[in-house]
Amino acid sequence: MKTLIVHAHPEPKSFNSALKDLAVSTLEGAGHEVRVSDLYAMRWKATVDAADYGPAASSPLRVARDSGRAFDTGTLTEDVRAEQEKLLWADTVIFQFPLWWFTMPAILKGWVDRVFTYHFAYGVGEHNETRYGDRYGEGTLAGRRALLSVTVGGAESHYSARGVNGPVDDLLFPIQHGILHYPGLEVLPPFVVYGSDRLTHDDFADVAKAWEQRLLTLGSTEPVPYRRQNHGDYEIPSLRLKDGLEPVGRTGFGLHVSG
Amino acid sequence: MKTLIVHAHPEPKSFNSALKDLAVSTLEGAGHEVRVSDLYAMRWKATVDAADYGPAASSPLRVARDSGRAFDTGTLTEDVRAEQEKLLWADTVIFQFPLWWFTMPAILKGWVDRVFTYHFAYGVGEHNETRYGDRYGEGTLAGRRALLSVTVGGAESHYSARGVNGPVDDLLFPIQHGILHYPGLEVLPPFVVYGSDRLTHDDFADVAKAWEQRLLTLGSTEPVPYRRQNHGDYEIPSLRLKDGLEPVGRTGFGLHVSG
Repeated sequence: MKTLIVHAHPEPKSFNSALKDLAVSTLEGAGHEVRVSDLYAMRWKATVDAADYGPAASSPLRVARDSGRAFDTGTLTEDVRAEQEKLLWADTVIFQFPLWWFTMPAILKGWVDRVFTYHFAYGVGEHNETRYGDRYGEGTLAGRRALLSVTVGGAESHYSARGVNGPVDDLLFPIQHGILHYPGLEVLPPFVVYGSDRLTHDDFADVAKAWEQRLLTLGSTEPVPYRRQNHGDYEIPSLRLKDGLEPVGRTGFGLHVSG
Repeated sequence: MKTLIVHAHPEPKSFNSALKDLAVSTLEGAGHEVRVSDLYAMRWKATVDAADYGPAASSPLRVARDSGRAFDTGTLTEDVRAEQEKLLWADTVIFQFPLWWFTMPAILKGWVDRVFTYHFAYGVGEHNETRYGDRYGEGTLAGRRALLSVTVGGAESHYSARGVNGPVDDLLFPIQHGILHYPGLEVLPPFVVYGSDRLTHDDFADVAKAWEQRLLTLGSTEPVPYRRQNHGDYEIPSLRLKDGLEPVGRTGFGLHVSG
């Protein structure tokens, strides 16, 4: 297995960093290759701007068009090209981050905004009567797997089906489905640690054991069965899910999970 | 009306910037006061790190605790204090941004991560048998209103109830409910422009007219009726919505909208 870990926490001694370190040692100990993008240590530039697209950037700037041209001509900045290369090298991508305001920290969002360029992660493939681009289950990153490892401050009940924050699977849907499944990644069920601000030493030992177990069984873990866009479930080009495919009573994001 | 517009697009000649400019001129023309935080123009620092909390930052860094201490002692960085002051000045806050990968651009997420500190936007109020902090409808920003003005590249059907991207109200829920309702803001229904990459000159005239209309009726627009956390709908401290409060068949994020 070739695993890329994308890590987003400012403190090397944090709980998140400990989970990242444990992933590296566990996977390497099992004979796998591991590369780490430690975004804070790399001083990752978080904001998309004209400097990303070099002297040929259009004025006014058109982010999608400019990023696609820079991708096509191999003129994206070196930091972005390096991350795209790592993604193509990997067969498994782990994202380690704290849930800040119910989504990823800005530095990680900025990694997505800059690395997932047009013609690499979107704007790929043909549009015709049966296909609407290579996306949602197809695309540049097809054949690879992704896993979110997330720490949250609140209690598990706050993120349950009736919890005030909303169900954790729904909170993570824009990331798991919208960012990862979109360019073709298969998404494994997330590893979520609740109440991470209040963990005791004993709690950490339990979490570490559970995390090691997840890491050592990545190869046999079934992905979330998100529907593929171009395999008959959706009308083209409205991309509405056809009627009658879902279990009775299912609505919202859950429609896009089959079975 | 005192309106703060938080704007996040790198190109001053973009469609997003035109909507921001139109908001300024329309509101000022109607006699309202307007302030703008143009995050790209301000070269807003997007990433939370120890530098945000000065020489007294703890080591290892504890983001919540350090941000609360810096808030309490008035030692947050000047850029963050200025944004908190603008939020307290405003009675209405408009966020103008393109939906990138189904959420806000990194620079705007970084505004949230850095400005919404502990003791300002979270970690406010008492916890007891009937209250779980001042949040979700109560808090520092209570009595103020917020509005998202968002452009998306895809077609409206892709964001409809059965659309492949997920319903737009669910995609925006982590922002509208999790970021804005949490510290007390009332959230108005969003202004969403679909297919923004393909707008013609005539389309823009229609959008501008609709946007002006929304701006001139902000004061009379009913907010999304998100439930208040401490008003009897939720069990404390599990924060699960009590049984039987929702219309039959409603699930997921929709549970937290009343009526």
